Amino acid sequence: MPRQITLASRPSGWPTADNFALTETELPALRNGQILVRNLFMSVDPYMRGRMNDVKSYVPPFQLGEPLDGGAIGEVVESLSPDLRKGDLVLHGLGWRDQAVLDAAHARRLDPIEGMSPSAYLGVLGMPALTAYAGLLDVASFKAGDAVFVSGAAGAVGSFAGQIAKLKGASHVIGSAGSDEKVAHLREIGFDAAFNYKKGPVAEQLRQAAPDGIDVYFDNVGADHLEAAIGSLNLGGRVAICGAIAVYNSTEPTPAPRNLALVIGKRLTLRGFIVTDHSARMPDMVTEMGGWLREGKLSFSETVVDGLENAPQAFLGLLRGENTGKMIVRL
Amino acid sequence: MPRQITLASRPSGWPTADNFALTETELPALRNGQILVRNLFMSVDPYMRGRMNDVKSYVPPFQLGEPLDGGAIGEVVESLSPDLRKGDLVLHGLGWRDQAVLDAAHARRLDPIEGMSPSAYLGVLGMPALTAYAGLLDVASFKAGDAVFVSGAAGAVGSFAGQIAKLKGASHVIGSAGSDEKVAHLREIGFDAAFNYKKGPVAEQLRQAAPDGIDVYFDNVGADHLEAAIGSLNLGGRVAICGAIAVYNSTEPTPAPRNLALVIGKRLTLRGFIVTDHSARMPDMVTEMGGWLREGKLSFSETVVDGLENAPQAFLGLLRGENTGKMIVRL
Repeated sequence: MPRQITLASRPSGWPTADNFALTETELPALRNGQILVRNLFMSVDPYMRGRMNDVKSYVPPFQLGEPLDGGAIGEVVESLSPDLRKGDLVLHGLGWRDQAVLDAAHARRLDPIEGMSPSAYLGVLGMPALTAYAGLLDVASFKAGDAVFVSGAAGAVGSFAGQIAKLKGASHVIGSAGSDEKVAHLREIGFDAAFNYKKGPVAEQLRQAAPDGIDVYFDNVGADHLEAAIGSLNLGGRVAICGAIAVYNSTEPTPAPRNLALVIGKRLTLRGFIVTDHSARMPDMVTEMGGWLREGKLSFSETVVDGLENAPQAFLGLLRGENTGKMIVRL
Repeated sequence: MPRQITLASRPSGWPTADNFALTETELPALRNGQILVRNLFMSVDPYMRGRMNDVKSYVPPFQLGEPLDGGAIGEVVESLSPDLRKGDLVLHGLGWRDQAVLDAAHARRLDPIEGMSPSAYLGVLGMPALTAYAGLLDVASFKAGDAVFVSGAAGAVGSFAGQIAKLKGASHVIGSAGSDEKVAHLREIGFDAAFNYKKGPVAEQLRQAAPDGIDVYFDNVGADHLEAAIGSLNLGGRVAICGAIAVYNSTEPTPAPRNLALVIGKRLTLRGFIVTDHSARMPDMVTEMGGWLREGKLSFSETVVDGLENAPQAFLGLLRGENTGKMIVRL
């Protein structure tokens, strides 16, 4: 029987395994234009935490008793569409299940990449890479010579944002992460400086890592990280606000940067963004990231968890920061 | 003897009269290229509160025992410059004193405007107007059809920001102010809606005044006003952060908007600015504001206090919100 992960209950604060259920299901018969896909990989991403709340946001909330969804890579098993054939590799939006029936129009055929796992399309050539690319270049208006700070830098988006900045001529790239191992990893992949935010106040560690200040902050964390960044930003500095993982599990409104009034004197720009608004940049991103990959200039890591039944744990681990690079579930 | 107001002590929290002293002074002899000016009007502005702290900011702090400074209009009494003549009306930066000696290059000759007080150059045709103009049009990228919320709307900058928005085709302009009289005044000068922020939670009053949300927020206040605006901003909304009068007298770091993470899903842009970066827009502003003034489409008010000795009280009153429109001291 096809299996899926459904939303068993809505979390208040940190989600737990109890909020998820592994259930069996029956798939509808294929209609014209549809495909049956066997999923090979699925993505777990921080934004999914917001979808567990019953709150209107930029993506609809998950529904109680219904399967979750999200990015997935699968192989076409059966096709009633002239556009896709059995054996085709596709990217689609019905993750959190081992099989899916969907309209061929909602799947994108992928070219297998020699020597790389298809899961790259969920990371270094997919949504997280586009998020980093568009966030840094378009939202934060990065330019060569800027000093850049990235929080959550050992995650998929963060590690790409830092590396893109470096490859595009940043004067100095600083990353924060939640363990010494991750900090060492950031240095290995080319960050000029990195610190463990659990080891001391972010503001102080950032000031030490960037005594001359920063020009761009790529924010995946919010809260004290954003406050520290505002403190260290130079005149005309820019913040791309991509995520706020520090507050996703808060049950109370979170006090935000107490130094927000500094945006005036420093002429700062803070800009929130959602990657789906930037899909027009996908070809540029794939061209540039693909080139850097071929030239060996870009590193990417995956933390791979096996089995659909372990997808909730993979997601919970992601929220706790247990991944380095892209968190992937292999089905 | 020439008189001046000096900084007697630095305030902690709200300033008081004790922080100021009225002293007599001697003026240096005029050197070549200099002028002696008798001041007619001087400006008190919220940004001066920041200069009372011993903190590096976008303008240097006032110095203990030294005269304060700021925008002033005066008449040239003596000139050793070929560029200015006795009797010329000038705008310059040595307010807080009844006479000043300065380089002619640091004064701008003004054309008297028929039927208007020269103090207009400190308000509707001066820095506050440019602040509103550049903040709304350039920083917040206002466009016709936007719904606009202005806080501190009965002040000089706020009243101009709201009126410019309306004259440029805003769908709806909402203002907040601190008294029922000011709220009535805002309705008279063309705001579509206005509320007294002291009468209830800002977020709730704003939601009622703008049930369909806002597209632009012109922020003079910060704190709960900014939080309310973030809550009401529509997708792609923009905030020009001009001032934060709610926090200028705080002795502790102020909790900022607890809902700042909404900037992500709503794709908001928050941008701080300082008017001096926008002086290139002065001619555009004077042309447009001057035109609206001649056509009777633009209202402006002044709250005028007489006498240099009362300048500290005028400034303290400004911080308490006792002015409607531009707060001016007539010397």
